[in-house]
Amino acid sequence: MSVGVVNAKLESFKAYVRKMKQYEEAISLIYWDMRTGAPKKGIETRSEVVGELSTEVFRMSTSDEMGAYVDFFTQTAELEQLDPISRKMVLECKKEYDRSKKIPAEKYQAYVVLTSQAESAWEDAKHKSDWAGFQPYLEKIVATTQEFIELWGYEGHKYNTLLDMYEPGMTVEKLDEVFGALREKAVPLLGRIQASPNQPNRAFLDQQFDIGKQKQFSLSILKQMQYDFEAGRLDETVHPFATALNPGDVRITTRYLPNDITSALFGTIHEGGHALYEQNISTDLVGTNLCSGTSMGIHESQSRFWENVIGRSKQFWERYYGELQTTFAGQIDDVSVDDFYRAINHIEPSLIRIEADELTYNLHIMIRYELEKGLFSGTIAVADLPAAWNAKYEEYLGVTPPNDGEGVLQDVHWSGGAFGYFPSYALGNMYAAQFTNTLRKELPNFDSLIAEGNLAPIKEWLTEKVYQHGKLLTPNEIIQNVTGEALNPDYLVAYLEEKYTKVYGI
Amino acid sequence: MSVGVVNAKLESFKAYVRKMKQYEEAISLIYWDMRTGAPKKGIETRSEVVGELSTEVFRMSTSDEMGAYVDFFTQTAELEQLDPISRKMVLECKKEYDRSKKIPAEKYQAYVVLTSQAESAWEDAKHKSDWAGFQPYLEKIVATTQEFIELWGYEGHKYNTLLDMYEPGMTVEKLDEVFGALREKAVPLLGRIQASPNQPNRAFLDQQFDIGKQKQFSLSILKQMQYDFEAGRLDETVHPFATALNPGDVRITTRYLPNDITSALFGTIHEGGHALYEQNISTDLVGTNLCSGTSMGIHESQSRFWENVIGRSKQFWERYYGELQTTFAGQIDDVSVDDFYRAINHIEPSLIRIEADELTYNLHIMIRYELEKGLFSGTIAVADLPAAWNAKYEEYLGVTPPNDGEGVLQDVHWSGGAFGYFPSYALGNMYAAQFTNTLRKELPNFDSLIAEGNLAPIKEWLTEKVYQHGKLLTPNEIIQNVTGEALNPDYLVAYLEEKYTKVYGI
Repeated sequence: MSVGVVNAKLESFKAYVRKMKQYEEAISLIYWDMRTGAPKKGIETRSEVVGELSTEVFRMSTSDEMGAYVDFFTQTAELEQLDPISRKMVLECKKEYDRSKKIPAEKYQAYVVLTSQAESAWEDAKHKSDWAGFQPYLEKIVATTQEFIELWGYEGHKYNTLLDMYEPGMTVEKLDEVFGALREKAVPLLGRIQASPNQPNRAFLDQQFDIGKQKQFSLSILKQMQYDFEAGRLDETVHPFATALNPGDVRITTRYLPNDITSALFGTIHEGGHALYEQNISTDLVGTNLCSGTSMGIHESQSRFWENVIGRSKQFWERYYGELQTTFAGQIDDVSVDDFYRAINHIEPSLIRIEADELTYNLHIMIRYELEKGLFSGTIAVADLPAAWNAKYEEYLGVTPPNDGEGVLQDVHWSGGAFGYFPSYALGNMYAAQFTNTLRKELPNFDSLIAEGNLAPIKEWLTEKVYQHGKLLTPNEIIQNVTGEALNPDYLVAYLEEKYTKVYGI
Repeated sequence: MSVGVVNAKLESFKAYVRKMKQYEEAISLIYWDMRTGAPKKGIETRSEVVGELSTEVFRMSTSDEMGAYVDFFTQTAELEQLDPISRKMVLECKKEYDRSKKIPAEKYQAYVVLTSQAESAWEDAKHKSDWAGFQPYLEKIVATTQEFIELWGYEGHKYNTLLDMYEPGMTVEKLDEVFGALREKAVPLLGRIQASPNQPNRAFLDQQFDIGKQKQFSLSILKQMQYDFEAGRLDETVHPFATALNPGDVRITTRYLPNDITSALFGTIHEGGHALYEQNISTDLVGTNLCSGTSMGIHESQSRFWENVIGRSKQFWERYYGELQTTFAGQIDDVSVDDFYRAINHIEPSLIRIEADELTYNLHIMIRYELEKGLFSGTIAVADLPAAWNAKYEEYLGVTPPNDGEGVLQDVHWSGGAFGYFPSYALGNMYAAQFTNTLRKELPNFDSLIAEGNLAPIKEWLTEKVYQHGKLLTPNEIIQNVTGEALNPDYLVAYLEEKYTKVYGI
């Protein structure tokens, strides 16, 4: 085939993908709007708009036209001639096309209805701590997911197919290894921390902090961390999130609690970390299906890097604590920066994942991972989950939920069928620590940059190494390219050991 | 053809129209977002999203599928069997289909590019008062519009075809009559007002009014006028507007000026009036192409009714002036409600349409109408516009622009090719006065309802008579059904005479 014909076909393929991205951008804006103040009486009609646009995106991703593009460009001769961006675009389309085509449409439609019903049922069941009200839904969801796995196919463990949706290339074998290594160190470290007589004083956090001032401080920190307000905005919402419409419009939301200054503070930095990733994707990728973070784990590594490695560091507060004291004049005047630092790094086993600290968070994730793995290998039945959950919480964290609402029913994920998602959070912590280790070598003045409030070089390093690539590189390629080795949990272990033996004087 | 087949075809036609409405809703949300705070670096990509979705809507409105629906349902036998909503839906689709099909696609595309360039050129020309920089664009736009009129066809005056786009059924013959009658009374009334020794004192308006308090007062007035905040929201913007996404989500924007309390106050009520119309369209019309105000003129009648007939009435301020004084405690304590009322009803010829009062506004519109009519009958060349503009301003208003920026270049409309739009504003004033005349008969306690702040019965009357019908009825049908006669300028004349002879003691 002549070069001219191939190029024309490539242009037309790219225009096709761009159109899908444009529809997705419209959908993302609608979701942002629905979560930040859309009037409630318009929601029903708006949901139908989302449904219509989503249907069109799905139709395009599985159309005969897409099939023809994928068939044509994945012929070896054609694929080899493509530039790297086009090649990766084709392979991503193929992955999605193949996945979607393997599920009969009516089966998928039924699954969408099921998860939508299950989400309502879950909300109700959580509220009432009524496991029995949710169990039948979850059983159907797990059974359907099992069917889907058979249709999609799998290598090794069935759960690998689910993991791959959120963290391409991730496997049970790898997770068992890295989570095992992490748990082996984290559990004893937690024991030593709990036994320490040196517990941080947190009493001063228990007071009212003016919301206007919290907002002003959040905005100031976002500017310092190089969040670009000409390419984003900060709004309020009940469940904070970041959403990337395009790299020039990456919005974050936060929640200001009058009696908890740390919620908005670290929540904003966390979402800001997600946003920095998306704001700094190469303009070469705009309008392609590569214009987003490469995986949930790498994404989470950035939110957690900024929230924890930077935002909960001693250096950061050496620089900004004076500003915080000035902002809340008269409220924390007598609290030293060291006491503040220790208070925001308080470690304590708890029941609720989303409120967990930097160390125990990983244990919450491992519990969910073990249970999900068991569900798909068949060693755990849905009916066994509450008991298995409580046993794991006792084993890993030494706590037992008083009811299922604060236990097995606490997270929304399973009601939406999002199995394989949870590990991303702990992977994010591991990636973050591993990146930090390299970053410290390549920017030897890392600590003093933070202490000076000069965060730009750190953002630039991450842009060069991670952000700009979007989905052009896989998570494995990124971690390998940047750090010279595959994912290694030792960096997180070392980071936690070093930080918390100091915080707790152990 | 069997009833079953016809019904199935009707369902499929309605689903097709609903899909177009859904795309339009997404587009409207994007525009709202771009005008209320979308980050500027994302605008370019977002504009492409709008372009893609708009292209799809246009494609659907002119597709062979649409053509087949229109052909099928406009066969006499079929059309007569349809229920009123379906019939009107078909006729609206046919009107748009026929209009669009008559313009060759490449010609229309070139026109879109031309108006987009012209809008930039206009902005620049207005800023520099540089008529010569804009004239060539306007000449091309007028010439293209002339061509389009030939393709679309026309009855009577060529300009009728343009008028019909904004005010279905409106003609030059009718406008000449109603504008003539209005001008004949308005110009002498203006003369008497200007000659009155009894000019309102406006000095107290020239002070700083806290923006937070302005906002609080605006929100309170919107609630009083029955704007439903569960079906809308108020935001800030540079050029205030109302946008209806669906009847459950009708948003308004306003602008707070620190040194001009009247801008946000009356601007908010004005946009609130537009919004009341859209919020109260019958739910039967949701998802159809009839779910919007029936014409620009009827729409404007509602914004102006609420802004002027209600919001600038003596009764309204008898009810709310105390609240205004309390809101701005210490700032207008010594100003009587009567002095306030007279100040906000100050009449003065001016150069700028959008700043004009209730009386002279109509004269600004008539000037534009005369010029547009001349452009399309061929009696005025584009090159003659500045001189013709200035002569008309001297004749109607007794003022002469010092430069074209404050004269012929002041409005954006012509740069977008929106000829025939301006008359809507003055039609709105006439319709509003005519509706008010009937309303006063049917709600004899109209004045005391306002004085009591009991605006609900007024909104309910308008909902029953006007709002609920959306585009199901034409402007002519509405004014005839509600008032028992066709558009009649005498009601506006009588309203202005009665109100302003009192305000100015003449």
